[in-house]
Amino acid sequence: MPSLASHISSVPPSGIRRIYELAVELDDVISLGVGEPDRAVAPHILAAGAAAFVDDVTNYTPNGGMLPLRAAIVEKLARENGIEVDLEQVWVTVGATQALHQAMGLMLDAGDEILVPDPGYTTFTMSARMLEAVPVPYSLLAANDFAPDVDELERLVSPRTRAIVVNSPSNPLGSVLDAAQLTALLQFARAHDLWVLSDEVYEYFTYGAEHTSIASLDTDDRVFSVFSLSKTYAVTGLRVGYLVTPPGLASTMRTVQEATVSCVTAPAQLAAIAALLGDHQHVADSKEHYRANLEAACALLDERGFAYLRPTGAFYLWIDMQHATDGDVAGWAERFLLRDRVAVAPGSAFGRSGEGWIRVCLAADPADVVEALGRLPAPGARSIATDRTPPRGDIGGAV
Amino acid sequence: MPSLASHISSVPPSGIRRIYELAVELDDVISLGVGEPDRAVAPHILAAGAAAFVDDVTNYTPNGGMLPLRAAIVEKLARENGIEVDLEQVWVTVGATQALHQAMGLMLDAGDEILVPDPGYTTFTMSARMLEAVPVPYSLLAANDFAPDVDELERLVSPRTRAIVVNSPSNPLGSVLDAAQLTALLQFARAHDLWVLSDEVYEYFTYGAEHTSIASLDTDDRVFSVFSLSKTYAVTGLRVGYLVTPPGLASTMRTVQEATVSCVTAPAQLAAIAALLGDHQHVADSKEHYRANLEAACALLDERGFAYLRPTGAFYLWIDMQHATDGDVAGWAERFLLRDRVAVAPGSAFGRSGEGWIRVCLAADPADVVEALGRLPAPGARSIATDRTPPRGDIGGAV
Repeated sequence: MPSLASHISSVPPSGIRRIYELAVELDDVISLGVGEPDRAVAPHILAAGAAAFVDDVTNYTPNGGMLPLRAAIVEKLARENGIEVDLEQVWVTVGATQALHQAMGLMLDAGDEILVPDPGYTTFTMSARMLEAVPVPYSLLAANDFAPDVDELERLVSPRTRAIVVNSPSNPLGSVLDAAQLTALLQFARAHDLWVLSDEVYEYFTYGAEHTSIASLDTDDRVFSVFSLSKTYAVTGLRVGYLVTPPGLASTMRTVQEATVSCVTAPAQLAAIAALLGDHQHVADSKEHYRANLEAACALLDERGFAYLRPTGAFYLWIDMQHATDGDVAGWAERFLLRDRVAVAPGSAFGRSGEGWIRVCLAADPADVVEALGRLPAPGARSIATDRTPPRGDIGGAV
Repeated sequence: MPSLASHISSVPPSGIRRIYELAVELDDVISLGVGEPDRAVAPHILAAGAAAFVDDVTNYTPNGGMLPLRAAIVEKLARENGIEVDLEQVWVTVGATQALHQAMGLMLDAGDEILVPDPGYTTFTMSARMLEAVPVPYSLLAANDFAPDVDELERLVSPRTRAIVVNSPSNPLGSVLDAAQLTALLQFARAHDLWVLSDEVYEYFTYGAEHTSIASLDTDDRVFSVFSLSKTYAVTGLRVGYLVTPPGLASTMRTVQEATVSCVTAPAQLAAIAALLGDHQHVADSKEHYRANLEAACALLDERGFAYLRPTGAFYLWIDMQHATDGDVAGWAERFLLRDRVAVAPGSAFGRSGEGWIRVCLAADPADVVEALGRLPAPGARSIATDRTPPRGDIGGAV
């Protein structure tokens, strides 16, 4: 067997998967480790997908997606995101995952650098490495209210830096960046002529904060925006997302889509049209479900004395477990799963800044969430935690 | 706007698309330019996809595909292809397109070379360029019976060569490589420690020739095989293919699938299971349809005095139009479309060796095929053709 391309060994595996794989082997686990919505899909979405099969809609579609789907997205972007684009700037993709990878591929030559949030979604780092590029983590720390620190960004930027990834609402943090913070990031990008790659897949789920699309603030066509139907409509397995590009890239996008996926599954595109154009009460209901889980979870964490970030977006809780994890949260999460039968994602899977923290997915049955959080060892259960200084700012918890 | 990654400008657009885009603007065109089967999809496949939506099968699946689908593929590979693999070597992909791109990504670092057939499927070149690799065309010429010439391959190979793409049955040629030819290619690959990337999407459509999978001849784990349901079952828009890897690559494959597409659309996977396990009479019927078209087409071409390759696989005709195209078959195909209302693919879209030739898709209504071929200017219509030496070997035609 010949050897694989040398850069492939630098692509890190997903650190959440180890827990996932252990969990599926056990039959009594409360599974809060992965970001899978627990909501049933709205009937009109399922009906449209079923009808597409019945009607034999099984031919290639244009590389960018069916025209009515792209038109529905254009209309949604204007209405919901304040992003005014034409059809040729909208590219239907195999979920947000493929949108992110495709966009990075357009920005990065081998050896180029891309600034990625730390903690941040695992794929940012994996995709960059697959492209022989260098992901350069920028910190989102409790000490800075989990916000990007532009002074740090200025220290990290180099002549090889080509782009910065911005993710709001954040996975894993659940934090939401406001317009002022996004404007500061755009100014930073402009000063260094960087692309901005904005991941907004949790756009519909915010709690007391407003989602702002950074592309709506863009003045010189440097933002690629990534959206997905997966979380909004609980259709992760339909694999429909979209990439919104600056103008003038249609022929390039057509070529790279043709060479990588050709197009997205046709019946899934018809289901997506139904989702975008149909009634959205079920999305509001999902948001209320996540909010209710969040409030119950925070009340319990407060009562038990945990330090955690009270999320304003997405459906995750970011919980400080340094008191229990002895500098190896990944090992602890594995032992916790085996002993206490709860799967959570170790924060270290999202970057170095996540060491000692865990991400708990709230897209689950409320009783399960409360039961699972009740099994977490509270601060004070071990003396290491008792004299720790609590993080500043937007942090809940009674410690 | 920042600039795109420098290598992106080296990714060539698909040369078939220009004709396709012109054709869709006209309303009286016989469309034989693209490789889209004209067959209805079997009812049991459509029913399975519809049922998946009705049953809300809309969650993420494993990165490699649903277990029953992978199991059905393992069984099919053993039965139909003589390829014995375990489940972890089978990866369900977004059509053959994504399988090819993913496999190339595992083989090629920036600057590496990959040998690609010329003429050959456009994506081989596009994908390599997206990976900052260098596609090195090897010729499939009439003078060599459209077979690879190992002496030429020996001249083309360099210390940077990492892989060779083999495509049988060939798009655009319709030629089929036999076991002896495949063995010679494997020996060549072994001598230079190259990967072999085998594209077999037309495996089910051969006429008087037997399809052999090069992986069934592999003795030292150097073959990646690419298959698709698209052509076999006429489901191009479902986007289901699969990549069969050498052993030992499961964790790498899991990571790169996670970072690029996550998984294939879940309802499409259930439709694929139905396709693989269900009755195959409709596939046999499709093959007879293509064969009947092929025979009618060849009879007409013989009668009209064309030189062409009599295909033994796929559903294309490769026709010599040098007598009419003055060294610019792409320009001629455009004028032919506008004047005579027939869309065909210019051979130059498939590589330099294709100049002067056209690819005609036979997956169409028989009357349309005959009508369209009747509009092609015959040799002798212009004096340039009359004293040309006919190509050798497996070439039909009366010139």
